Amino acid sequence: MRIGLIVVGAGRMGSIHAENIRRLGSAELVAIVDPDEGRARMLSERLHVPYYTDLGDAVKIHRDRVQGVVIASSTTAHLDNVRVAGDLGLNIFIEKPLAPSLDECREIVGIVRRRNILAQVGYQRRFDKGYQEIKRILDTKSLGRLFIAKFIARDPMPEPGVGIGKLYLGAIFDDMVTHEFDLVSWFFGYPPERVSAIASSLCLGGGDYDSALVSISYKDGLLVDIEVTRCSAYGYDLRLEILGSEGLAKLENVPENQVYIYSRGNTARLPKLPWFAERFREAYYREIESFVEAIARGEKPVPNEEDGLRACVLAEASKRSAINRMPIIISEILG
Amino acid sequence: MRIGLIVVGAGRMGSIHAENIRRLGSAELVAIVDPDEGRARMLSERLHVPYYTDLGDAVKIHRDRVQGVVIASSTTAHLDNVRVAGDLGLNIFIEKPLAPSLDECREIVGIVRRRNILAQVGYQRRFDKGYQEIKRILDTKSLGRLFIAKFIARDPMPEPGVGIGKLYLGAIFDDMVTHEFDLVSWFFGYPPERVSAIASSLCLGGGDYDSALVSISYKDGLLVDIEVTRCSAYGYDLRLEILGSEGLAKLENVPENQVYIYSRGNTARLPKLPWFAERFREAYYREIESFVEAIARGEKPVPNEEDGLRACVLAEASKRSAINRMPIIISEILG
Amino acid sequence: MRIGLIVVGAGRMGSIHAENIRRLGSAELVAIVDPDEGRARMLSERLHVPYYTDLGDAVKIHRDRVQGVVIASSTTAHLDNVRVAGDLGLNIFIEKPLAPSLDECREIVGIVRRRNILAQVGYQRRFDKGYQEIKRILDTKSLGRLFIAKFIARDPMPEPGVGIGKLYLGAIFDDMVTHEFDLVSWFFGYPPERVSAIASSLCLGGGDYDSALVSISYKDGLLVDIEVTRCSAYGYDLRLEILGSEGLAKLENVPENQVYIYSRGNTARLPKLPWFAERFREAYYREIESFVEAIARGEKPVPNEEDGLRACVLAEASKRSAINRMPIIISEILG
Amino acid sequence: MRIGLIVVGAGRMGSIHAENIRRLGSAELVAIVDPDEGRARMLSERLHVPYYTDLGDAVKIHRDRVQGVVIASSTTAHLDNVRVAGDLGLNIFIEKPLAPSLDECREIVGIVRRRNILAQVGYQRRFDKGYQEIKRILDTKSLGRLFIAKFIARDPMPEPGVGIGKLYLGAIFDDMVTHEFDLVSWFFGYPPERVSAIASSLCLGGGDYDSALVSISYKDGLLVDIEVTRCSAYGYDLRLEILGSEGLAKLENVPENQVYIYSRGNTARLPKLPWFAERFREAYYREIESFVEAIARGEKPVPNEEDGLRACVLAEASKRSAINRMPIIISEILG
Repeated sequence: MRIGLIVVGAGRMGSIHAENIRRLGSAELVAIVDPDEGRARMLSERLHVPYYTDLGDAVKIHRDRVQGVVIASSTTAHLDNVRVAGDLGLNIFIEKPLAPSLDECREIVGIVRRRNILAQVGYQRRFDKGYQEIKRILDTKSLGRLFIAKFIARDPMPEPGVGIGKLYLGAIFDDMVTHEFDLVSWFFGYPPERVSAIASSLCLGGGDYDSALVSISYKDGLLVDIEVTRCSAYGYDLRLEILGSEGLAKLENVPENQVYIYSRGNTARLPKLPWFAERFREAYYREIESFVEAIARGEKPVPNEEDGLRACVLAEASKRSAINRMPIIISEILG
Repeated sequence: MRIGLIVVGAGRMGSIHAENIRRLGSAELVAIVDPDEGRARMLSERLHVPYYTDLGDAVKIHRDRVQGVVIASSTTAHLDNVRVAGDLGLNIFIEKPLAPSLDECREIVGIVRRRNILAQVGYQRRFDKGYQEIKRILDTKSLGRLFIAKFIARDPMPEPGVGIGKLYLGAIFDDMVTHEFDLVSWFFGYPPERVSAIASSLCLGGGDYDSALVSISYKDGLLVDIEVTRCSAYGYDLRLEILGSEGLAKLENVPENQVYIYSRGNTARLPKLPWFAERFREAYYREIESFVEAIARGEKPVPNEEDGLRACVLAEASKRSAINRMPIIISEILG
Repeated sequence: MRIGLIVVGAGRMGSIHAENIRRLGSAELVAIVDPDEGRARMLSERLHVPYYTDLGDAVKIHRDRVQGVVIASSTTAHLDNVRVAGDLGLNIFIEKPLAPSLDECREIVGIVRRRNILAQVGYQRRFDKGYQEIKRILDTKSLGRLFIAKFIARDPMPEPGVGIGKLYLGAIFDDMVTHEFDLVSWFFGYPPERVSAIASSLCLGGGDYDSALVSISYKDGLLVDIEVTRCSAYGYDLRLEILGSEGLAKLENVPENQVYIYSRGNTARLPKLPWFAERFREAYYREIESFVEAIARGEKPVPNEEDGLRACVLAEASKRSAINRMPIIISEILG
Repeated sequence: MRIGLIVVGAGRMGSIHAENIRRLGSAELVAIVDPDEGRARMLSERLHVPYYTDLGDAVKIHRDRVQGVVIASSTTAHLDNVRVAGDLGLNIFIEKPLAPSLDECREIVGIVRRRNILAQVGYQRRFDKGYQEIKRILDTKSLGRLFIAKFIARDPMPEPGVGIGKLYLGAIFDDMVTHEFDLVSWFFGYPPERVSAIASSLCLGGGDYDSALVSISYKDGLLVDIEVTRCSAYGYDLRLEILGSEGLAKLENVPENQVYIYSRGNTARLPKLPWFAERFREAYYREIESFVEAIARGEKPVPNEEDGLRACVLAEASKRSAINRMPIIISEILG
């Protein structure tokens, strides 16, 4: 029997998830929900499934076929959607980050527990071959004792005049660095000891930082160095390296193809570094497949709401550190 | 309506094609045929389709649902299978090379023409993003006048004791270099002027060369340098570079992932260079998709029997050159 | 006429400088000085010049032939040697860092000014082709507005049992990061606004940190991310990248040669990454040549004592930040 | 005592050698000789040594100080200069190739033997760190049995209107491929069994081919694939790779520095690939140093006239093969 899913949010991520559900033999795309009716209708017409502007309505009508909700709405609407899904006892796949504040993240985790539903969070890098290989290397201890980890995440700079929407101060840590926060916990354990962040507004307006350095230290001395920026002129640049007592592991970029052109004047045309939708095309497919399998087996998915909460804590610490210009001791946030 | 296909040959390539047909919404896998009943049954059970040991039988039973035959039998059986398909007026997708001799290649082309069926040949590299980008670059003339083209094709050396079957002298040109021959015609036009080959048996027994250098020259001076070997200790290595008056285009290998480990003593563990089934996973899917679309539209596929014949001519020239140690003028083969 | 120089310090750096002076047609190596007589004698015998255990003695004897002193003694002896040279009105080339404390650095600058001598500091990277090309790129503004700079400096980890001597807490900032501090000032101007550092003892004992992350921010928003460690198992790794509004400039490692060996199991032997003496062989030659030219022309050398002092200030800020776990505002140190 | 040398030829290579002799503590540059008096005077003034237009005159005047002649005249004048040096019993360093014809090469070897002088040939790549590392790898047999060797040599294409002088048909094999011929003999032994060459005139006029493919086979099956061209739009590209039963060794290009700039549109500015004078700056120094040492010790230099003759034989075979479009059996040339 196929696992029936409703997708909430007909934007970029919602479309990706809806299409992948369509490709999955083990799942069925039951309906699209978006409060913006025009957007909902467009995606619905493209994929030939009904659409609704309200999640409750959609579930009422398709109750017996629905086992999960994929929440790809705006982050600010996550909590409301989780409440509705929780009330109805539906499992959830929720896009990262859980919520734009630590309090809301905690509330979401509370709902998932009380309602006893399954929850997976959209950290798709965990399903990418490269990141999985890094995790495997760490698990085998072949790097020895871990010394320094370095993450670079550079988003393509928007074209002049094209913003990325109005953001609050510190949103970059929730929206963008949340991926690195999840990787840090996944790779090195949780919680670390301290977080220190500095941030700047360099290429964008909109009320938030667009670039930041985050330093994280662990009790055993491991140092984590994260750089994020939305200001990359040359494309999406996503790398990491981990230094241990036995050597260094690096994850390099994955170009679109392997075609290089060399011309006069020492210039070259390199293959494009595709942005996230393309870079993680397979990972997005595999994370939904994994969610469907977890429902089918009745097992807790990974990464789940606990992982989501961990990233919320590190994001909160980073926000406080960047704004107050002070290092933050994680245990003080954990209380 | 879905295009019904029968796959002949339940070996490695037959399995790849059968699975891709299953993934295609536009096609239906009707049956598996292999004279080796055990092999046919195994694949049939895995994919839940009926199997036969004779193509004629299979077509008789499923006549109204079948529009094409995917011929992935041993190369020596290609001609027989084409005859059966031709007699029944079925379109064919035929693995490379068309046949192990120029005469048989010509006979296959004759059948396709007389029977007025559609034929596509399995040069899957034409459906790979990298090779397509190279073709696009050549079509835009951005390299200027073409001077030198260089192809490297190194197959992983079999484990000691594992042969690649009994082969006739020159089989390497039919079986392996056929890909480069097709690329040469696709990229630079056909026919070239001369072909010169030298070949050696270096790492394998089995009655054939396992390594060769082929030099091809065009009337306008373009020089083509092809190296092939079955003796690569470090994995599948497939590269090309094209030098023109304006610069150089290179197609590099596509590693499995982008994880690199650096250790003591200047050693590194590099990502695996996956062999053909993995390297061209997407291309194999797309070539069958393209064949199905050609049938649906009633249009001549590309690459087709003419392309297959061109590669047979270049293979014939190379065989004669390597064996007789003489350069061969192509026009003398064309007669 | 040749510029006569005395080298103080017969250790590793002193030997390098002494040999380069010998190679320079424009200079003359007059004497070697080292309080450790055995060490002094060994170098003296190798280079066929007299040796002394006291700088004052050496100068007295060779007074009319000496115009400068190359101070490559232990860092703690820098100030004393500068005093002697200053008293005698001799120009100085002084190894980095100026001194192990900000107070002593200031005293050295004071002596240089009062005595009106010429002083150059041993930041040899400024004479390396790669770093000079980066500087040139920055000067042409071709990267646009500068956003983020990233430095990686990883020294080879000593063999087990081999220490790097007894060090005080924070010595890594004086001894190792001083190079990056000089580059930061040279590339981006001085002073920056804030410095924040975290540090760990990971692979060495000896009373100091062996690894650190330093974050530096400028008033205009530029973020600088420095990673240093003495714990690299795979060799000397020295890289930088600078992101601006128009693109990214990277300086990669310079391997010993360009020979790569690929073997079974996806392993490779890469060319060695040579350590500093070899990596900067040419730069060490050119910095002494530049010092000699400055003396010959009577012009203030670059980098000079002011540059040395700037690095001392950034080192002091980093030490305070790492030890007290607080960001440091540079203007508070400058007073 | 210093070894006194006269340099014949005040062109590009003569200047390089003259300067390197000046840098060598063990040698003395006695005089410059060039029949073109203007050219001789220019170099002589730059280096502060006397000049002559005739080698005999120069030797007569400086007889007691001269022990060797560095012949960097035009290739067509090599034989005459060797005769003069031989008559005077002077050792010779002679630029590659020995001579533009196999007969003259043999005559030069005859003179060297009869006169019992020492002769070194200017195959400077043998003194390059990268090529030496390749040789070392081959000597250790770590690649196992050798299968295929691949050489790429692409000279920068002259600017439009700038020729490379009037050449005879096949000069490219004497002038350019001679380096690869020497490497082939050095690496793999001599003689090989067969040589086959095809050549084209693609970017230059001037009466010679400007591009060629040369295939060389050895009795044990080793295949050698050489590509040379004078038509590289993007710079000097000099690579090799050697495949053996245990793996692959590659020698990649050595860029001017390691600075890379990445900009919009997937474009990059790569470091320049320096042309030969810069690429082999150190090797040119070391080959003259080696010649001087050989004279000082009275030992036969390497590479010597025998090595030079081997390259002449392979060049002769290639010329015949390219012009007559036939493979050449080396033993037939050796007679």
